[in-house]
Amino acid sequence: MEVFEQLESRIRGYCRTWPAVFDRAKGARQIDENGKEYIDFFAGAGVLNFGHNDDRMKAALLRYLESDGVTHSLDMATTAKRTFLQTFHDVVLKPRGLDYRMQFTGPTGSNAVEAALKLARKVTGRRTVVAFTNGFHGMTLGSLACTGNAKYRDAAGVPLEHVVRAPFDGYLGEDVDTLEELRRMLADPSSGVAPPAAFVVETIQAEGGVNVARTAWLKGLAELAKAHGALLIVDDIQVGVGRTGSYFSFDGTGIEPDIVCLAKGIGGYGLPLAVCLVKPEHDQWSPGEHTGTFRGQDLAFVAGTVALSYFADDALCDAVKRKGAKTHGRLDALVESLGRPEVDLRGRGMIHGLDLGSGAWATAATKAAFERQLIISPCGPSGRVMKVIAPLNIPDADLDAGLDRLCEAVQATKGAA
Amino acid sequence: MEVFEQLESRIRGYCRTWPAVFDRAKGARQIDENGKEYIDFFAGAGVLNFGHNDDRMKAALLRYLESDGVTHSLDMATTAKRTFLQTFHDVVLKPRGLDYRMQFTGPTGSNAVEAALKLARKVTGRRTVVAFTNGFHGMTLGSLACTGNAKYRDAAGVPLEHVVRAPFDGYLGEDVDTLEELRRMLADPSSGVAPPAAFVVETIQAEGGVNVARTAWLKGLAELAKAHGALLIVDDIQVGVGRTGSYFSFDGTGIEPDIVCLAKGIGGYGLPLAVCLVKPEHDQWSPGEHTGTFRGQDLAFVAGTVALSYFADDALCDAVKRKGAKTHGRLDALVESLGRPEVDLRGRGMIHGLDLGSGAWATAATKAAFERQLIISPCGPSGRVMKVIAPLNIPDADLDAGLDRLCEAVQATKGAA
Amino acid sequence: MEVFEQLESRIRGYCRTWPAVFDRAKGARQIDENGKEYIDFFAGAGVLNFGHNDDRMKAALLRYLESDGVTHSLDMATTAKRTFLQTFHDVVLKPRGLDYRMQFTGPTGSNAVEAALKLARKVTGRRTVVAFTNGFHGMTLGSLACTGNAKYRDAAGVPLEHVVRAPFDGYLGEDVDTLEELRRMLADPSSGVAPPAAFVVETIQAEGGVNVARTAWLKGLAELAKAHGALLIVDDIQVGVGRTGSYFSFDGTGIEPDIVCLAKGIGGYGLPLAVCLVKPEHDQWSPGEHTGTFRGQDLAFVAGTVALSYFADDALCDAVKRKGAKTHGRLDALVESLGRPEVDLRGRGMIHGLDLGSGAWATAATKAAFERQLIISPCGPSGRVMKVIAPLNIPDADLDAGLDRLCEAVQATKGAA
Amino acid sequence: MEVFEQLESRIRGYCRTWPAVFDRAKGARQIDENGKEYIDFFAGAGVLNFGHNDDRMKAALLRYLESDGVTHSLDMATTAKRTFLQTFHDVVLKPRGLDYRMQFTGPTGSNAVEAALKLARKVTGRRTVVAFTNGFHGMTLGSLACTGNAKYRDAAGVPLEHVVRAPFDGYLGEDVDTLEELRRMLADPSSGVAPPAAFVVETIQAEGGVNVARTAWLKGLAELAKAHGALLIVDDIQVGVGRTGSYFSFDGTGIEPDIVCLAKGIGGYGLPLAVCLVKPEHDQWSPGEHTGTFRGQDLAFVAGTVALSYFADDALCDAVKRKGAKTHGRLDALVESLGRPEVDLRGRGMIHGLDLGSGAWATAATKAAFERQLIISPCGPSGRVMKVIAPLNIPDADLDAGLDRLCEAVQATKGAA
Repeated sequence: MEVFEQLESRIRGYCRTWPAVFDRAKGARQIDENGKEYIDFFAGAGVLNFGHNDDRMKAALLRYLESDGVTHSLDMATTAKRTFLQTFHDVVLKPRGLDYRMQFTGPTGSNAVEAALKLARKVTGRRTVVAFTNGFHGMTLGSLACTGNAKYRDAAGVPLEHVVRAPFDGYLGEDVDTLEELRRMLADPSSGVAPPAAFVVETIQAEGGVNVARTAWLKGLAELAKAHGALLIVDDIQVGVGRTGSYFSFDGTGIEPDIVCLAKGIGGYGLPLAVCLVKPEHDQWSPGEHTGTFRGQDLAFVAGTVALSYFADDALCDAVKRKGAKTHGRLDALVESLGRPEVDLRGRGMIHGLDLGSGAWATAATKAAFERQLIISPCGPSGRVMKVIAPLNIPDADLDAGLDRLCEAVQATKGAA
Repeated sequence: MEVFEQLESRIRGYCRTWPAVFDRAKGARQIDENGKEYIDFFAGAGVLNFGHNDDRMKAALLRYLESDGVTHSLDMATTAKRTFLQTFHDVVLKPRGLDYRMQFTGPTGSNAVEAALKLARKVTGRRTVVAFTNGFHGMTLGSLACTGNAKYRDAAGVPLEHVVRAPFDGYLGEDVDTLEELRRMLADPSSGVAPPAAFVVETIQAEGGVNVARTAWLKGLAELAKAHGALLIVDDIQVGVGRTGSYFSFDGTGIEPDIVCLAKGIGGYGLPLAVCLVKPEHDQWSPGEHTGTFRGQDLAFVAGTVALSYFADDALCDAVKRKGAKTHGRLDALVESLGRPEVDLRGRGMIHGLDLGSGAWATAATKAAFERQLIISPCGPSGRVMKVIAPLNIPDADLDAGLDRLCEAVQATKGAA
Repeated sequence: MEVFEQLESRIRGYCRTWPAVFDRAKGARQIDENGKEYIDFFAGAGVLNFGHNDDRMKAALLRYLESDGVTHSLDMATTAKRTFLQTFHDVVLKPRGLDYRMQFTGPTGSNAVEAALKLARKVTGRRTVVAFTNGFHGMTLGSLACTGNAKYRDAAGVPLEHVVRAPFDGYLGEDVDTLEELRRMLADPSSGVAPPAAFVVETIQAEGGVNVARTAWLKGLAELAKAHGALLIVDDIQVGVGRTGSYFSFDGTGIEPDIVCLAKGIGGYGLPLAVCLVKPEHDQWSPGEHTGTFRGQDLAFVAGTVALSYFADDALCDAVKRKGAKTHGRLDALVESLGRPEVDLRGRGMIHGLDLGSGAWATAATKAAFERQLIISPCGPSGRVMKVIAPLNIPDADLDAGLDRLCEAVQATKGAA
Repeated sequence: MEVFEQLESRIRGYCRTWPAVFDRAKGARQIDENGKEYIDFFAGAGVLNFGHNDDRMKAALLRYLESDGVTHSLDMATTAKRTFLQTFHDVVLKPRGLDYRMQFTGPTGSNAVEAALKLARKVTGRRTVVAFTNGFHGMTLGSLACTGNAKYRDAAGVPLEHVVRAPFDGYLGEDVDTLEELRRMLADPSSGVAPPAAFVVETIQAEGGVNVARTAWLKGLAELAKAHGALLIVDDIQVGVGRTGSYFSFDGTGIEPDIVCLAKGIGGYGLPLAVCLVKPEHDQWSPGEHTGTFRGQDLAFVAGTVALSYFADDALCDAVKRKGAKTHGRLDALVESLGRPEVDLRGRGMIHGLDLGSGAWATAATKAAFERQLIISPCGPSGRVMKVIAPLNIPDADLDAGLDRLCEAVQATKGAA
């Protein structure tokens, strides 16, 4: 670790949480340079939906590399990209009857959000965007303005403006419709709140503490957006691509966002890729208006095409639902046994948040889990929520073992609360 | 191309400039799906300094993939990252006596610039940054505020503030010291210009039209920054990593930037990677203050380590100087033969800008070049500058052929001016 | 009127509402150049609390002018200013046990608010200010950012930032504690809402439609401000100086603002004057940090000193209460007789808002009132609220006659709704 | 003075510079409560062009007050306002062939500038305004953004944006055309500087240190504005209304501003009044779009009408030229005798700046002058410029005596430099 301490910036974080030098990885396991194996309940912050180094993707990548396929292509046309576009259309859009144009942005979620915000502002000719408490949308100044976390915001060094903050579903208790205030303000020309260019929302706030919006609220939001000529941007970067048991997290809600931001899992193998899905009527870009050097990542197109194939039938999504239910059951029993009223369990599909109500406890539990060879990370306000996001294809044995270790770690650190 | 037209956003750009579907690439050549070969004078917008699919990097990548090395690691410690860090230190920093900490940001140049701006603002407690006419620093709101191009700026949809614009070297003619005005303003408490957090500068403005800052000007800038407690940020994203005939573009100028932003070429194989080099005294980040999902790209570390090895001796850089001189000579003769006073040639190492003084001419010449199987792109104000940035290791035969085609294309389109 | 139409800007407004050329004024009456007398239920937008050309003030002004007292003094010391300062202290502050420093700003309410915002930001080192729906605080960019009205805001031509908008008391219905959301957001480091420099509030939103905050809400606001280290700024510009039946509108609520902004009525005779009352611990200005040419208006000090004398005993305030109750009774009966559920009556002391629920009706009623020689102006969202703010010392006969005319005008225009 | 120290805010400034309690004033003299007489070379910061308590204005005011003329009228029509409008048209506009609409704003210069900026942004649909080094335009956030002084700017507590700062005439030496840089930037779509809504300029920067723009520069500025569709706003608040020897400071330059801001001297007697003169084609306001309680100050209209009468013939302006020349001669001799190369004299008409090159010296000289019963104030960067702005109608004896005292004070404090 000395090399990291001497040569890398103080900003490094996860290598402090999990002080091991990793060398190899496979499936739901990361292996350090001493051969020690860790079960992965973190999945690269939601990137590795298909586990580490999935064999089918690996084979495709090796083939592509060996054949000297184009690696880097910006937004030139390539055969690999064409295959990805067509497969995305055939597997994801067509079966849902969805009509979206695909925009490949710089390959980070933050960049996809920046592009979505620009486009919404251009299409509407408006400036303000509504974002929600505990939202997380990225680290560059445009997306950061939509992010709620004070630590990240304060690091901007400049005011983060042009965003109105509204309470997410459930923020004021289950019984309060948190959209009502916005409804009144937007109907009132003297409220001081102008009609927004867009609402930007995660259906499940992952970094924000695994807060799950109810369908009725999402529908209300979509109606409010429509009523006021604002675009609905769904940031599905962490909970899309199968995480909730279907491709999009909003499948089945009846809402149809104007723009969907995808990144993380879309490249399949942990390779950077990001995309905005844009309703054709909003695709009002001029050519080259939002550029970026690494838009055309052909290795990511190759692995991502394999990733899409996992959605060609129901096997993966069914497994997500089954394993999600198992996870929920186990953690629910843990909550019961803890006997602490402040502890709360939230989640859907294969994303769960065990809210310990205490950042100190969560920090201790994370450490205790690592000692038990489990990789898991806290999130949410003051980092008090243990976020469980295992690879979607984690073997049941690893899932069970991981849950055992998590339960032990939480129990063992109960005193840290 | 139909698939792209139907499924991709209107924003696509380069696939309009070069209407071919590329399938394979090698060295300085891109090959379309019909087997047609193009000489590459574009190099992935400066990414592919080592050409397409360099065999040594390819071998390393295949080995790494086959061994199931960690692919995606955020800022966890990995063996591949450690090797990269150590090699960068040994090959680049140590021989120059430079002391920098390395911060891996989200893997785009824009993200590296955003991180640098945040850090400069944090370190100084100031807000304003000085950027230059025709500067290009990225597309996200923080970096975009530093970018000069109106088309990109207007797409923001919000004001881009906290940046003071100053004229780049030569902007007001060769004889005007463009820093003098800033010197007076910063010394005058009533000028309306506050002491800045940083100056952000490219030593050669690549996208801005291949404008080359003179050493004396860069030194003056470094002194001005120091005198006013501002950080000097060099954005070496496009012209670093060997482009000018040495690793950094500022080698030999005597200046030592407080922060250096690198991206594009650093990952070697066109794989996304970005890094900020930060003077230890400015490395005042808290852990995790600027995060990003794709910071830890191990394939890029693997290929990038091979890329660094090309700087272990002088062979590559000597070749860059030699081929750069050849390019300059050929283009100089072209300028001469064109007999148009508005045509200008600028450049250093293996980046050259042939300023045709007319966007229409440059557009026509780009098209004519593509018809001659040469990939080249215009840049600069109104897109009037043909930018020549071939891979650094382009074979002489390809370089010669490419220059032939370029000269023909420019001559053939003279009437379009 | 031709001269106005030819030489004055199109922006002129009130001369369109009340198309007469006024020549003289006395008490609660304005007299046009043809000798036609109008009862004044507008009082110079709340300036003329003591009526037009009060005889005691007039005598004092004539004496002062004749003696060549200093007229214009910026913040030099003058005898007239000293008398005003001392009288304000003796009559207003001392009896209430209040300790405030007085800052004379540029002589507009907007300027007082701008100064208060600057000071709150300086004292706290914070940037954001919380303002409320339907708030009105002025027209210059700092105060305008706190104002809610879209017409005024849109005229700024630049974004109005650094302000968080919260719902005023009653905005979401009588049963909703509109501060609860802010309480949660300010306690949550990931809410996206930073601790504010200040809350800026009117206890009764006059321009906003005569919305009256309840004492419990004001107390809650004061506690919230204190809990988060924010300053409480009460903008008492329209409803201070006796309007509610005591000097300050917040007398008797138990709250003690950190800064109080006064203007309009303070100069007594309609002469421009504005002042910020600042708690000594927050009086952290450097000399001359917020200047202004017309800070020292000695004629206003002279008339304003007489105005203060009206608060030396209870006569004026008792009359305000009595006449306010009478007004309320009459308007209540009107509401009853109108039989329209959307019509609402709000008010306290001698400010009342008759909310007709329709801007068209209010416009027609204003016109009908003018035809009946009553000057009254609508306010609130879409201008649907008839605001009754007669001079505090209006004779009962004029008050009664004015109320008669108002009731007739409203009844007569019922069809315009 | 105790009352001021105990009851007034620490922000008070001029009463520290001139520690006397003033009671009466007449002509060019202020008299303190002990009967001590001071010669006034400050003129209420440029307000009292017609001296203190001018007898003709005084008589008009007394008559108006006695007749119970309307005092406060917002933008209602009054007979006093009509007379002022007509007189302004007849005396100022018509003889010059100028066609302007008059907009009365809140009665401070800052408010006039805020209104002008709003209108320019509305008319052009643009946001950015160009202001100049050492410019002074007011203290509210919109006008303050155009002001250069760092002390004032820092007090804002929020970023002051949407303004591009350019060097005033002479800022880079006599030989540099400071507009050339802007000319290039505005012609270059990649400069990072967008076409501005307006240029806001003082022809003579009074607070900024008495910097006098040359006619050629003003013409160049007017051309530049026209060429780029920007409005030219002349802030004539301190140097208009006769200060330079004609009504407008730009008379005779050939430029015709799109908007002229007037305040200070316009009300004649030190009574607050401010006005924007707007070219009819730019008078695109909606009624009531920029309001303000104290727009209709009838006492100021009455005194201001008398003030205008002084421009009905050439007597006043001729005297200004004569007394200005005398002042210049005396101060020039002083500069000569001081033998300090850093001392500089600038000015035109009856505004002069004696730049001592040292804030310490100027502070000492100001104090020494006050001890000699001369009221004068420093201005400019670091307060190093003694600004001489006596009332325009100062008797020659007082002017001579004042100049004697000033020369003595400067000589006596030479060591403080």
